[in-house]
Amino acid sequence: MSSYHFSKIVHMSFDDAVHSVKRVLRKHDFRVLTEINMEDNFKKANLSFRPYLILGACNPQLTYRALQAEDKVGTMLPCSVVVQQKDDGNVEVSAVDPVMSMRPIDHVQVGEVAREISSHLQKVIDEVGETQVAANLVIAAA
Amino acid sequence: MSSYHFSKIVHMSFDDAVHSVKRVLRKHDFRVLTEINMEDNFKKANLSFRPYLILGACNPQLTYRALQAEDKVGTMLPCSVVVQQKDDGNVEVSAVDPVMSMRPIDHVQVGEVAREISSHLQKVIDEVGETQVAANLVIAAA
Repeated sequence: MSSYHFSKIVHMSFDDAVHSVKRVLRKHDFRVLTEINMEDNFKKANLSFRPYLILGACNPQLTYRALQAEDKVGTMLPCSVVVQQKDDGNVEVSAVDPVMSMRPIDHVQVGEVAREISSHLQKVIDEVGETQVAANLVIAAA
Repeated sequence: MSSYHFSKIVHMSFDDAVHSVKRVLRKHDFRVLTEINMEDNFKKANLSFRPYLILGACNPQLTYRALQAEDKVGTMLPCSVVVQQKDDGNVEVSAVDPVMSMRPIDHVQVGEVAREISSHLQKVIDEVGETQVAANLVIAAA
């Protein structure tokens, strides 16, 4: 079975990873509409957890196209992008693959939009931390 | 193919439907963590749309269980509940069916949690507007 997410470990702090994800999302025309700090939310329910942020990303043009085709597609929006600190201290970024999550929506146009968003989100995860690495190389070479 | 959402038309105003959904979600131990006004968001992108709200709901205990089993499950969270005004003026409420959206996650415990959340969300949609109807009957009978 294919995976339902694009993920990678990034070699930066949690906060730097959050900034990098937001910057790369903007570059790919996604707006960050929501931000959920799961650690804080669990704390309110007396549950202890590690740093875990869920960003809700949305590309207005593509979302508009999907909603014209299928008005309940909002139950699968926005696209969630997670930044989490693992137990070993590593920071991982993950984006949902909408092709997998939206598979139950039996609609050709929604499928097309899902593939387009999926391709953008895969690039977002590929690019997170890249500028940081490039910047560090410049500093190291100077 | 089974549907990916639970939906029904409610016979109330858009704002009353939003209040009712929030109240019933709370009753079923969901917290509303996010609220996205899609009409406003589309307006910022110069796109015209009708009233369409996406609430991000989360049951902390069940989410905690799912995250212990599978740490990327946050890419499919929170559970989205939509209130929309259709072109004919009717107001419709819809909740994602996490059993369908989370099907690509090949994990027994996540499947169990998804079925539990699904059952709660189906009840939420069933109950939206019910108190309103009961209250109107009381007023009519008085």
